[in-house]
Amino acid sequence: MMERLVLHEYAASGNCYKIRLTAALLGLKIERREYDILKGETRTPEFLANVNANGRIPTLQIGDRFLPESNAACFYLAEGSALIPDDRFDRADMLRWMCFEQYSHEPYVATMRFWVAFIADRLSEEQKAQIPMRRAQAEAALKVMDGHLAGRRFFVADRLTLADIALYAYTHVAEEGDLTLAPYANIRAWLDRVAATPGYVGIGA
Amino acid sequence: MMERLVLHEYAASGNCYKIRLTAALLGLKIERREYDILKGETRTPEFLANVNANGRIPTLQIGDRFLPESNAACFYLAEGSALIPDDRFDRADMLRWMCFEQYSHEPYVATMRFWVAFIADRLSEEQKAQIPMRRAQAEAALKVMDGHLAGRRFFVADRLTLADIALYAYTHVAEEGDLTLAPYANIRAWLDRVAATPGYVGIGA
Repeated sequence: MMERLVLHEYAASGNCYKIRLTAALLGLKIERREYDILKGETRTPEFLANVNANGRIPTLQIGDRFLPESNAACFYLAEGSALIPDDRFDRADMLRWMCFEQYSHEPYVATMRFWVAFIADRLSEEQKAQIPMRRAQAEAALKVMDGHLAGRRFFVADRLTLADIALYAYTHVAEEGDLTLAPYANIRAWLDRVAATPGYVGIGA
Repeated sequence: MMERLVLHEYAASGNCYKIRLTAALLGLKIERREYDILKGETRTPEFLANVNANGRIPTLQIGDRFLPESNAACFYLAEGSALIPDDRFDRADMLRWMCFEQYSHEPYVATMRFWVAFIADRLSEEQKAQIPMRRAQAEAALKVMDGHLAGRRFFVADRLTLADIALYAYTHVAEEGDLTLAPYANIRAWLDRVAATPGYVGIGA
C-alpha cells in the first residue's frame, strides 16, 4: 500500500507528465497541485523551504516526504513493477537512457518547446542567439534515438520501461518547439507504440 | 563474478572519475582506455559505431556490452552493495541527487572548470558571454548542496552512497573553474568525509 501521493507540478511540463504517465500505467492514484512557473510560484520562500530547495517542479510528495527530479520520482513509483527490467544490465541501461534524456535531450528538445510555444514573445536576445545551437543539439539527440530504435520496439529489454516514458514525454510534443519528427520514422513508430500501451494517458489529461 | 570491465574515458573528466571511484570503493578491477576529447577522439566513426552513438565518454564496457552515462555505470557497478541504500525512498532520493548533479550542477560547475582550466585560450565569444550565467548557476547549485548538508554527514541515508560520489567528482575540483568553496563550510567538511572513506582514490590516480 503506497502512502498518499501528491504531485507538485506545472501540468504542461513534460517532466511532470512523465510522473503522471508512470502512475497511470501502474494504476496509482496521484493528487495534483499546480504552480505557475511563469509567475515564479516555485521560487517563493515557502516552496523553497517545504517542497524543493532547488526551486523546480516536479516534486513528488510521498506522505510527508518530498522527492524532486522527474526520473527519481518515476523510479520510486515503478520499483518492483514491469516498468523496470529485472536484468542488472538492462536496469542500468534504462537509467542510461534516462540520463541521456536529462543531459542530451531535455535541455534542447524541451527548451525549444518552452521558448517557442510558451514564452516566444518574452525571449531575451541571449536566448534568441542560442536557438540555432539548441536546435542542432535537439536534432542530434533525435538522431541518436532514431538510430537506436532501428530494429527495436522499445529502448531497453524489448518492452516498455521508464526509459521510454522519460524520452516520450518531450519527444511526442517536439514539434511544438518548431522541430520536425518527419525524418525519424523509427521514432514516429515508437511514439505510436507507447501511446497504444494499456493505461496510457495523454499530456493534457 | 563480474565480467571484464573496461572504462572508455578521458581521465581528467569528473564523470569518468565517478566510475573509477565507485569501482575502487567496491574493490573492482577496471581497465582503462583513454580518448583525447580535445582532439575529437570520441566523435570518430569507430567510436560512434562501437562505443557510444552519442559521442561521449565515459562509457563502461562490460564484457562485450557498452553502457554510456556516468551515473548509469556507477549504478550498474554498485547494485547490491552498501553504496545503494536498501530503503525504497532513500534509493530514489539517491537518484534524485544524481539527477540534480547532471542537470543543475555538472553543466555549470564542470563546464566552468573545463572552460577555465582546459580550453581557456580557445573559448568562443559565445562561451565567454555565458560565463556569468554559468557561474551564477554553479553557485546556486553549491548553495543547494550546502543547505542540504547542514546537519547531515552525507546526502542520503546518513552514509556514503552514489549520490555523494556523483556530487563529489566535480565539486572537489570546482575551484579549478574559478569558483570558490570558501562560503560553503558544510560542503568542505563533506568533501573531507568522502576523501577519508576507506578505498578512496583521487581523480589523478
